[in-house]
Amino acid sequence: MEKPNRNGYSRLREQIFTIIFEADTKAGKRFDVFLLVAIILSVLVVMLESVKTFSEHDHQIFVYLEWFFTAIFTVEYALRLYSVKNRWSYALSFFGVIDLLSILPTYLSLVMGGAQSLMVIRVLRLLRVFRIFKLAHLVTQSHILIRALRASREKISIFLFAVLLLTFVFGALMYFVEGGVNEKFDSIPRSIYWCIVTITTVGYGDISPVTPLGQALAAILMVTGYAIIAVPTGIVTSEMVKKVTRQNVTTQVCPSCAREGHDANAVFCKFCGSRINEEDK
Amino acid sequence: MEKPNRNGYSRLREQIFTIIFEADTKAGKRFDVFLLVAIILSVLVVMLESVKTFSEHDHQIFVYLEWFFTAIFTVEYALRLYSVKNRWSYALSFFGVIDLLSILPTYLSLVMGGAQSLMVIRVLRLLRVFRIFKLAHLVTQSHILIRALRASREKISIFLFAVLLLTFVFGALMYFVEGGVNEKFDSIPRSIYWCIVTITTVGYGDISPVTPLGQALAAILMVTGYAIIAVPTGIVTSEMVKKVTRQNVTTQVCPSCAREGHDANAVFCKFCGSRINEEDK
Amino acid sequence: MEKPNRNGYSRLREQIFTIIFEADTKAGKRFDVFLLVAIILSVLVVMLESVKTFSEHDHQIFVYLEWFFTAIFTVEYALRLYSVKNRWSYALSFFGVIDLLSILPTYLSLVMGGAQSLMVIRVLRLLRVFRIFKLAHLVTQSHILIRALRASREKISIFLFAVLLLTFVFGALMYFVEGGVNEKFDSIPRSIYWCIVTITTVGYGDISPVTPLGQALAAILMVTGYAIIAVPTGIVTSEMVKKVTRQNVTTQVCPSCAREGHDANAVFCKFCGSRINEEDK
Amino acid sequence: MEKPNRNGYSRLREQIFTIIFEADTKAGKRFDVFLLVAIILSVLVVMLESVKTFSEHDHQIFVYLEWFFTAIFTVEYALRLYSVKNRWSYALSFFGVIDLLSILPTYLSLVMGGAQSLMVIRVLRLLRVFRIFKLAHLVTQSHILIRALRASREKISIFLFAVLLLTFVFGALMYFVEGGVNEKFDSIPRSIYWCIVTITTVGYGDISPVTPLGQALAAILMVTGYAIIAVPTGIVTSEMVKKVTRQNVTTQVCPSCAREGHDANAVFCKFCGSRINEEDK
Repeated sequence: MEKPNRNGYSRLREQIFTIIFEADTKAGKRFDVFLLVAIILSVLVVMLESVKTFSEHDHQIFVYLEWFFTAIFTVEYALRLYSVKNRWSYALSFFGVIDLLSILPTYLSLVMGGAQSLMVIRVLRLLRVFRIFKLAHLVTQSHILIRALRASREKISIFLFAVLLLTFVFGALMYFVEGGVNEKFDSIPRSIYWCIVTITTVGYGDISPVTPLGQALAAILMVTGYAIIAVPTGIVTSEMVKKVTRQNVTTQVCPSCAREGHDANAVFCKFCGSRINEEDK
Repeated sequence: MEKPNRNGYSRLREQIFTIIFEADTKAGKRFDVFLLVAIILSVLVVMLESVKTFSEHDHQIFVYLEWFFTAIFTVEYALRLYSVKNRWSYALSFFGVIDLLSILPTYLSLVMGGAQSLMVIRVLRLLRVFRIFKLAHLVTQSHILIRALRASREKISIFLFAVLLLTFVFGALMYFVEGGVNEKFDSIPRSIYWCIVTITTVGYGDISPVTPLGQALAAILMVTGYAIIAVPTGIVTSEMVKKVTRQNVTTQVCPSCAREGHDANAVFCKFCGSRINEEDK
Repeated sequence: MEKPNRNGYSRLREQIFTIIFEADTKAGKRFDVFLLVAIILSVLVVMLESVKTFSEHDHQIFVYLEWFFTAIFTVEYALRLYSVKNRWSYALSFFGVIDLLSILPTYLSLVMGGAQSLMVIRVLRLLRVFRIFKLAHLVTQSHILIRALRASREKISIFLFAVLLLTFVFGALMYFVEGGVNEKFDSIPRSIYWCIVTITTVGYGDISPVTPLGQALAAILMVTGYAIIAVPTGIVTSEMVKKVTRQNVTTQVCPSCAREGHDANAVFCKFCGSRINEEDK
Repeated sequence: MEKPNRNGYSRLREQIFTIIFEADTKAGKRFDVFLLVAIILSVLVVMLESVKTFSEHDHQIFVYLEWFFTAIFTVEYALRLYSVKNRWSYALSFFGVIDLLSILPTYLSLVMGGAQSLMVIRVLRLLRVFRIFKLAHLVTQSHILIRALRASREKISIFLFAVLLLTFVFGALMYFVEGGVNEKFDSIPRSIYWCIVTITTVGYGDISPVTPLGQALAAILMVTGYAIIAVPTGIVTSEMVKKVTRQNVTTQVCPSCAREGHDANAVFCKFCGSRINEEDK
């Protein structure tokens, strides 16, 4: 497909690269929007195909639509492979694998027959939507979110770990208390599943305690869950507030010792004592 | 109805306008309260009419009450149309349409027979209650709320988008895992519905996983939902805290020592004592 | 019972008053603890009496216990009436009425037979526990909570009002969408009840949508509820943070103009420009 | 087992102590990781043993595995007892008791036969995982969490107490309202259990109101619970924000101009430029 015809072709490759991989040009943006629509429509097709009333009546339409979108994505995948500088690093990257998984199931269904399970893989196409985050200023906003989450990652891990320990201990207790009477608490893993359903306040009710002692324990677990939901919220919020209040610290550099982090109203460098603001600002 | 009788009538129109559309005068406030009571009572009537035990026994009473309130709202709508300066812009505005929808269903029921569906439109009358927000200082308070929400709109959109992507991927996974065994997970859209019920910690229990793998996936989804509920809270809270801490400090610079950070009500510079606000603000 | 025997008796009255109504003395604290235990035990008796397995077997014991606690509370009520300065204002106060309601049901049961409904009134005794809040430094802590809640009262009211409007509109919509198919959505009030169950993420599952459109609407309602739970949290938290950051403002009064609200690092009064801190603090 | 052979042995004891009780050395860290894996595997065995399909088919394997892990933990317990300075204080400490409970049930099962209830005690092994918190910098992170929780302990207790009072009063009310009609509300304790399930937004749906009045009361309870969830969040968050903003500012006073508010890493006063920290900290 690709002919190494020197200058002419390499300029074409660059243009395709700019359109497909970048979003700065008009054509690049248009391509992103087109791809986004195609992805969403193809996922909608997969979703509707899983509804029995639709797939029984109009099975053929779904097959046509599926091949239509697969064709689009195959062309796109080929162009990506063609235009990218380092092919293997793209093909093995997160999005490279997702891109391949988006088209593979349809081709495999030719060989293996229409296996149900392949349909599910096709939903992974949706992950490609994350490319949209490249679009303009959405990046800034999501970066703030991601940074706040990353900053509180450790605290949240410890918190989740403590919550899981709690569910294990309570799960074993509930299995002991309810196990004999209530057939729903028939094993410790199921008890732990119930504990997680309870402490996160989801509360399906498919499993629920029936003995007075079990209900008392459940009540304690709920109130605990209710009180500790405050903890992750507090972690993330204080991290975000910290970011907001830090904005009062200037990025000014001391001309003498070159250190940063001075308050907005500082007159002298707090590290070396030399004047940083000539005029009393 | 309206005769362009120059001065006399236009003063009447102005008076009606002041009473109906504004809330500054005593009569205007009284009208607002009267309208509020009428709206709430008429909505109560619609609600009670939908309860079968009531509507079967006392059907005639509901018909009378309905016409009574429709009469009031018709007169009000006519007066609004009469007194407003730009009739079309009112009639096509959000509240203009709502006002019309408040009375139309009752008249239509004469022509079309008492269609059930029209009853529902009548509940939209409730939207008219939002007019009450014109009342005095409630405005300030709700503005603070709305501004905080608007400032965090983008971050919340990205967050919701990420949550939705998560529910799509988990929905497809659960359809694959539970689909064969559990007839409740009979399509991907229904699986996604279940994911939303779970991640928002609503947890009806009308659909719930039965296989061990499905329950393990559900547990992961719940804990994820539990941890990320912290994010929108953090967004809105940090936005509000920012507003609170910023509120009190102006960006005004002292003309004498050029320092910033003065409170909004400061008259003299707190660092050098020279005047910064000529008139005692 | 009370003889106006001048000095001797009025000193007794004062002593009783100090013990019963105040918590500063040792005897007063001991009385409070004793009363607290009596209240909790009496409420436990009422609760256990409501459990059929207990009340059928040991009915007589519950009757004895009930009279025992009623006797204690009657003596206490008599002493309160005796020792307080303004009897009517006590008898008609919130706690005066609660105190009376604590003993009345048992006496009434003599006249009227053991009416079930009277048992419920006896649980109101629990409200008397709020007296414990008089105890020492718990007051300070709860005052901070109450002040933060009071400061955000208006914002929270508006928020709750908006949430209720939302449930009304969605309730009517769901009644229209599910009404014909799903017998659980048989009236608008019940639909609104379901909306509240959903938006608060309680999610019993006693009523749940079955049509695709109903489930889609429910999903929207849930995500909305999930996003707006952030709002009351943000309100209360920012109120509390405000309190914390305000502590940086001194309570120092300007010696020249007597106004307050100066920053901790202010040298000159920001209102009149006179020096407030002699030495550059 | 222990021979008081002076120097040689006491050095061995010290080495064992360093490996088992401390995590600073390489061997100590390796031991901690090994122990962590053993604990998690042994708990997994207990959990899987509780699943009937597994325990019926491969019962013998579970018995072998159980003895394998018990042997490891017995050796570990013996070494801990041997190497620790003060044996009784270890044996009676929280972790000493947990360590003993980890091995006791297996030995007891020899005497008493395989009692089900003993299996549950074995899950308590999981509590030993908390030792992992000794590992490196996780301590710092968890200390921040624990300190924030401890600082808000009092406020949260009062809050929980108020919530419990609310559930008691509402529980009695619901028993009165629903008791006769709805057999699920058959006692006040069960009504209170339902209240806790509702106010914490868990909402199993195993018990749910059926009368209009009961549903209206439930709606009020839910909205209340929805609004007050903000309170513990606000408490913990404001406590964390306080810590964050305070962290960076010392209470140190400049010896030359006597002003405060210097950052923790400041060497020179930011207001007058004189040295405040002799050595470059």
